[in-house]
Amino acid sequence: MSWFQQKVKLPPLPRGFHLITDKVVGACPEMSTINIGICQVFIQHTSASLTINENADPSVRTDFERHINIMVPENAPYYIHTYEGSDDMPAHIKASLMGASVQIPITNGKLNLGIWQGIYLCEHRNNASGRDIVITVFGR
Amino acid sequence: MSWFQQKVKLPPLPRGFHLITDKVVGACPEMSTINIGICQVFIQHTSASLTINENADPSVRTDFERHINIMVPENAPYYIHTYEGSDDMPAHIKASLMGASVQIPITNGKLNLGIWQGIYLCEHRNNASGRDIVITVFGR
Amino acid sequence: MSWFQQKVKLPPLPRGFHLITDKVVGACPEMSTINIGICQVFIQHTSASLTINENADPSVRTDFERHINIMVPENAPYYIHTYEGSDDMPAHIKASLMGASVQIPITNGKLNLGIWQGIYLCEHRNNASGRDIVITVFGR
Repeated sequence: MSWFQQKVKLPPLPRGFHLITDKVVGACPEMSTINIGICQVFIQHTSASLTINENADPSVRTDFERHINIMVPENAPYYIHTYEGSDDMPAHIKASLMGASVQIPITNGKLNLGIWQGIYLCEHRNNASGRDIVITVFGR
Repeated sequence: MSWFQQKVKLPPLPRGFHLITDKVVGACPEMSTINIGICQVFIQHTSASLTINENADPSVRTDFERHINIMVPENAPYYIHTYEGSDDMPAHIKASLMGASVQIPITNGKLNLGIWQGIYLCEHRNNASGRDIVITVFGR
Repeated sequence: MSWFQQKVKLPPLPRGFHLITDKVVGACPEMSTINIGICQVFIQHTSASLTINENADPSVRTDFERHINIMVPENAPYYIHTYEGSDDMPAHIKASLMGASVQIPITNGKLNLGIWQGIYLCEHRNNASGRDIVITVFGR
């Protein structure tokens, strides 16, 4: 049974949805020693999030941003948590809709993602600093 | 410490929400040997998803489908990823809202679900082929 | 490799979003013995849920409740699962949007949450009884 854990600082990214699969894989070379296991990626923030979705056509990620801005609008008249800017409260809600972590099976030393799957960093703020993620890999 | 992993091909299912708890349990008889552990179910697709919800009245699953189609409509004028059909981009968004995996505690050899909980396969496409899930069971 | 599991009964809480980080930590003193690991919190219900979000200003939790009631309204004309009250079917949908579990890395004996992160119990019913959660802690 092996355990590895690595904190990674992602650089500032513009608001929207971004593929980070390569960064996750690159940060955990020890994954190659695991036959069966799990890779967890956890984001230590409440206005950015992680999800798994299509890794090919960037228009998918554009439409994620377009739709989520309709589903969770800025400046809704019922928001009371408004003093950190109009993008702040929607960012918190979007973060919980997407989630703070992803868990991916490891098989034969690699993430066992489907052929079209990638890991998204979902940046919900307009002018965020870099984001910290904690990658935990375990298995046998 | 024991690890088991099994890939399962689910048959094509109509668009909507479907109980697959029995299929997951049936695919992992080794679960019975685990006293404390976790069962992860991961779907290797980006237009279908997994969630946990009510296992009894089928009207709950019908209403999931009705509501999610309002919350994430087809043919929204702002979608640009449209060339795979009107059900495709909404399917990607729905998949991330529900999630690509569920993690369930194992206690005394069984999934420790609440009495009303079941695992849903959420099929967001109109005419999908079968779906691949990877079940990983680990514990002691 | 260590495994600990604990079922905790939370007292009845009003509809809305509630911080339970202290209750989770307090229920698992064994966490302090784990250098690298994972803490999973799983809720055994289908009309309440768990998420991770801001632990400071209570107005964030108020706005979560305000917005989710718009995003998943009561008395939508298309619901057919209505016999358990107008808050029931929306509660099921909200529960799947937020999720039935959270998974948090453990580092040096503690939950490795970001400075602003806390665990929310999301109570989606008007008059719920107490809620059961299962906490599973594992690592080395």
